Amino acid sequence: MANPRLQRLLDKFRKVEIDAFLVTKDVNITYLTQFQASESWLLVTKKGSFYITDFRYILEAEKGLKGISIKKYDRSMQHTVFELLLDLGLKRLGFDERHLSLAGFKNIQKECPKTIVLIGLCDVVEEIREIKEKAEVDAIRGCLKLHHQAIKFLRQTIKPGITEFQVLDQLEAFVKARRAGFSFPSIIASGPNSCFPHARVSRRKIKNNEPVLIDTGIDINGYKSDLTRVVLLGKIPPLVREVSEIVKDAQLKAIAVIKAGVPVAVADQEARNHFKKFDLEQYFGHSLGHGVGLEIHESPRLSVKSQAVFKSGMVVTVEPAVYLPHKFGVRIEDMVLVTEKGCEVLSDQTA
Amino acid sequence: MANPRLQRLLDKFRKVEIDAFLVTKDVNITYLTQFQASESWLLVTKKGSFYITDFRYILEAEKGLKGISIKKYDRSMQHTVFELLLDLGLKRLGFDERHLSLAGFKNIQKECPKTIVLIGLCDVVEEIREIKEKAEVDAIRGCLKLHHQAIKFLRQTIKPGITEFQVLDQLEAFVKARRAGFSFPSIIASGPNSCFPHARVSRRKIKNNEPVLIDTGIDINGYKSDLTRVVLLGKIPPLVREVSEIVKDAQLKAIAVIKAGVPVAVADQEARNHFKKFDLEQYFGHSLGHGVGLEIHESPRLSVKSQAVFKSGMVVTVEPAVYLPHKFGVRIEDMVLVTEKGCEVLSDQTA
Repeated sequence: MANPRLQRLLDKFRKVEIDAFLVTKDVNITYLTQFQASESWLLVTKKGSFYITDFRYILEAEKGLKGISIKKYDRSMQHTVFELLLDLGLKRLGFDERHLSLAGFKNIQKECPKTIVLIGLCDVVEEIREIKEKAEVDAIRGCLKLHHQAIKFLRQTIKPGITEFQVLDQLEAFVKARRAGFSFPSIIASGPNSCFPHARVSRRKIKNNEPVLIDTGIDINGYKSDLTRVVLLGKIPPLVREVSEIVKDAQLKAIAVIKAGVPVAVADQEARNHFKKFDLEQYFGHSLGHGVGLEIHESPRLSVKSQAVFKSGMVVTVEPAVYLPHKFGVRIEDMVLVTEKGCEVLSDQTA
Repeated sequence: MANPRLQRLLDKFRKVEIDAFLVTKDVNITYLTQFQASESWLLVTKKGSFYITDFRYILEAEKGLKGISIKKYDRSMQHTVFELLLDLGLKRLGFDERHLSLAGFKNIQKECPKTIVLIGLCDVVEEIREIKEKAEVDAIRGCLKLHHQAIKFLRQTIKPGITEFQVLDQLEAFVKARRAGFSFPSIIASGPNSCFPHARVSRRKIKNNEPVLIDTGIDINGYKSDLTRVVLLGKIPPLVREVSEIVKDAQLKAIAVIKAGVPVAVADQEARNHFKKFDLEQYFGHSLGHGVGLEIHESPRLSVKSQAVFKSGMVVTVEPAVYLPHKFGVRIEDMVLVTEKGCEVLSDQTA
C-alpha cells in the first residue's frame, strides 16, 4: 500500500492514461517520499515505486526511505527507469515537461524502448501539493509564529542611522538563535530602495521620516512563510501614508473575495480595481500572490492571466503593492488558508 | 563594441552557424554581463545585446547594466525575443538545450515565426566559463585565503564532546564575521557519518580516536572555493591512518598528471589505478573532481567517461576518496589551476 501522497499521484493515472510517472524534481520527490532527496529520480508505478540515485546517496536513501525500493544506477538514470518498466510490463510513462530540460528529454528519448510511450504532462505533483494537509498548515503556522516575533524584533531594531546590512545581521542572528532559517534572501529596502520590488540589501543608512520595506521568509524543516511589512519611521510624509492605506485596503478587498471555487484572477482583479480608483494601477506590476509550502513560490500563481480556481486547503500570499519609481514602494503581504467559506488569514496582520 | 566575455560568445557564432544566441540560465547571464541576473533572458546578437526582464527588475537592470539594451516584456519573454530578431533581420537563433525545460522549449516553438530557425546547442557559455580570467582566479584565491583560515579555526574547534551542529555554528559565525558566505551547505561528518559522501550535519557528539570529514566552500561575491579535510582526533586507528595515506597518494598522483592537453579521464584513472593496488577502487564511487567558479560544480567534470581535455586556465577540484560502508570515509580535496606546464595547486595542502 502506497503512502497517502503517492496514492494521490496514483489516483491521477487513469485520467491522464499513464501506468507510471517519473518524478524528476527534487522537491516533488521530497514531498512524495518525505525523504530529503537530491540527485535522484522517483519512478512511481501501480506495481511499486523506485528511488533511483547514484553511489553517493545510496546509504542515506536506505536509511531514510520507507516502502520504496532503492535502485543504484550505473549507466544512466533513464536506463534504469526503462529496465524497471520492461520488467514490470508497463508501457505508458508520464513525466513533467517543466522539470526536464530539452537535453534531458532527448537523452530519455534516445534510450526509450520501442514498446514504451512517453507522455509529457505539466504540474502533476504541483497540483497535489497545492492542497495542504493539516500537518503542512501546522508547519506553516510554526514558521509564522517565529516570523511574527522576528517582525516585532525588527520594529524595535530599525532606527534612523542603522544601515540595511546591520538590520539584516541582527535579523539573521535572531532567527539563527531560534534554530530556524530563511526561505529566501531577505529584502530590507529603505527610502527610495523600496521602489525596487526585489531590492538587494545595501549599506544605505536608514533615515527618519521614510518607509522601510521588509520582505522576509522563515524556513523550518523545509516549510516556509513569506510576509512583507513597511516600517514607517518618524514623521511619515502624507503621500507615503496615503499610499500605505490604499495598499492595505486593496489587500483587505482581495482577501474578502478569496474562497474555494472563486477564480484566482478575481482576487487579483479586486486589488487592481481598487488601485484604479486612485490612478495607481500602473504601479502594481506583479501578480497578487502565490502559493507557499515546501517552495517559496508554488502553484497557484494569483495572476489575472491565471485560469486557476481557489481550492480549500491552498495556502497563498496576498501582496498588493504600489511602487512609485525613484520615490518609494509599499507592499503588504500576508498569508491565507483558503476554506470552503472564505479564507483564514494565517499571519498576524497587526504584527 | 561588446565586452570581452560577450565577444568570446559572438566569436563562436560562425562555427555553430547562428546569428543570435539566447542565454536562459541566470549564472551565465551574470557571467556575460557582470550584473546579478534573475528572472531574465539575455539575447546576444552581432547587432547588439538585449536583457529581457519583467517589471520587477527593470529599475535595477537600468542601474546595473552597461552597454546592453534593456527590454521589459509584457506578453512573454519569447515574444519579445522574436520581435527583436525580426526587427534586426536575424534568422538563426541558438539556445542551450540544458537550460530550457521541455515545456519552455515548446512555448518558444509555439511563438517562433516561420522565418526563424531554432538551433539547440549545449554548454556554449559553460565552455567559455571553463577558462578563468586572471581576475577570476584571483577571486578564487581570495576565497581560499579565508578558507585556509577557516580550516585552521576548525582544527582548533573540533574536540571530543562537541557536536557536529556546534562545530557548524562556530564555523558559520567565523565566516560571517569576515563578511563571506558559503558556496554550499557544509558537511561535518564524524566517525561513521563520514562514509556518506554527502552527509548532513547531525547532533552527533564527536568522539576521540575517530576521523571528522569536513567539506566546505567559501563564497565571496559569487566566486567559490571547495576543500575537504579529514581531521583526525586522538589516537588514530591504524586502518584510518592507512586509508588516509592511500587517498593522499592517489591525490598526489592525479595532480601530477594534470596539464593542458591531457584528457581529464587520465587524471581520474590515475587515482583509480592507485586505489586498485590496495583493492579499494570499489569504494571510490564518484568522479575525481569538477570545475569551480561562479558555480560550485562547473564544467569540466573529471570523470572516466568524460571526453574533455584539460585546458590552461581551468580551475578544478581533485578529490579522491575511499568510503568504507558503516565504518568511515576519507576524502581529500584541493583546488588546482591548469597551466601549459602542469598545474598550480591553489589551495594550501598542509592546511
